[in-house]
Amino acid sequence: MTSYKLTIQYVGTRYAGWQIQRNQRTVQGTLKEALGRLTGETVSVIGAGRTDSGVHALGQVAQIRLHKQMEARRLQRALNAILPPDIRIASARVVPSGFHAQKQAVRKRYVYRIFNGQVLPPFLCGLVCQVPVALDLEAMIQAAGLIVGRHDFRGFAAASSAVKDFRRTVAVSRLVRRGRHIRYTIEADGFLHHMVRNIVGTLLEIGRGKRSPSDMIRILESRDRKQAGPTAPPEGLYLVKVWYR
Amino acid sequence: MTSYKLTIQYVGTRYAGWQIQRNQRTVQGTLKEALGRLTGETVSVIGAGRTDSGVHALGQVAQIRLHKQMEARRLQRALNAILPPDIRIASARVVPSGFHAQKQAVRKRYVYRIFNGQVLPPFLCGLVCQVPVALDLEAMIQAAGLIVGRHDFRGFAAASSAVKDFRRTVAVSRLVRRGRHIRYTIEADGFLHHMVRNIVGTLLEIGRGKRSPSDMIRILESRDRKQAGPTAPPEGLYLVKVWYR
Repeated sequence: MTSYKLTIQYVGTRYAGWQIQRNQRTVQGTLKEALGRLTGETVSVIGAGRTDSGVHALGQVAQIRLHKQMEARRLQRALNAILPPDIRIASARVVPSGFHAQKQAVRKRYVYRIFNGQVLPPFLCGLVCQVPVALDLEAMIQAAGLIVGRHDFRGFAAASSAVKDFRRTVAVSRLVRRGRHIRYTIEADGFLHHMVRNIVGTLLEIGRGKRSPSDMIRILESRDRKQAGPTAPPEGLYLVKVWYR
Repeated sequence: MTSYKLTIQYVGTRYAGWQIQRNQRTVQGTLKEALGRLTGETVSVIGAGRTDSGVHALGQVAQIRLHKQMEARRLQRALNAILPPDIRIASARVVPSGFHAQKQAVRKRYVYRIFNGQVLPPFLCGLVCQVPVALDLEAMIQAAGLIVGRHDFRGFAAASSAVKDFRRTVAVSRLVRRGRHIRYTIEADGFLHHMVRNIVGTLLEIGRGKRSPSDMIRILESRDRKQAGPTAPPEGLYLVKVWYR
């Protein structure tokens, strides 16, 4: 069998997230189906990470193994010919059979896009989170910086998170404004369920003056999800890049 | 009655163009309907120019007249609350009753977006024209420049064009590349039906080496639509701005 690493871009709007679920259109399921049509095989597709319903990807990574051997470029082209246009294989390459898209990921980058204006440009519908009210960007930038480093992120994880170890190392947590567009970038060695959206939801409350930047520290220390802000909506979130050793 | 000037943005994908047509979803029709719901009046909506099915707008201009007097900002907000998210009123203001969105337009800017790569990013689907083959950009830039000035554009107009005077003055005709993205900008005092798309279709043939830049002059001089290249697809085209005196 041959192992392939696929880099995948998708608009999450029409999908109930990455992970296969019964009676739901998912990205993983759509890929599995396309691979089945292409090869006649039942192919397992393992992604670097799950993305929730409505969340997008510019660089999701998946591994697949095929009995049928195909040149990687041909596999890419054939898949793109079958897949709907809102899912694209940006690249495909053959990898050693030991490659594991999820377990071997050492870092991921997510970006959260906010449109800070009254009238959402129609081209951005479903692709950003709109915040029509004024935001204190300085406070948000300061707050974002406070979570860099190794911390227990339980306070920012979905209450239902089943993991045992909530510690993650955040290497980058940065906010940039360009006119009405705000872009939050976070890079870490791993992410808990809803972690980025809960961080962004809290940053937005800080931007609105409902909280102070130091709340970020307080939430980390509390290890209590109820202390953080609401989960920001999925449409602003992008899985941008996954790094491997 | 009060006259209003609306600046409108829309994603043309779901619409059979600007102009009202029976049994078709159009931008003008959708606006008229929203205005009817809002005011109870049958409102005539006059646009600066028609856009074809699938063509987008960042700055279409329309004029409306209402018996009901409304503060312009309130009108904008109320319309945006009723309209689907792929049509947005970017601004609204009260204008003198003599204002005519179509007849008084002195210049328009269209932009045509080309994605010059193999794999179309899923976020650009329907929003650009994809050209997967290599393009000779220098030749295209040279060719684009040749149509600046006052010319008879019959050779670039849809064969069905009903106008009598095919002369138009092109003030800007410029091509810019940024990585895989090519942006063609054209500004003129008026445009013939399919004029921009026929110019772009010809520029693309020049970019592929099927024609030489001087063909632009030859087509202008021929005044014969059959001499120009094919009509480029609608999804790359944007009505960006309309100027008034």
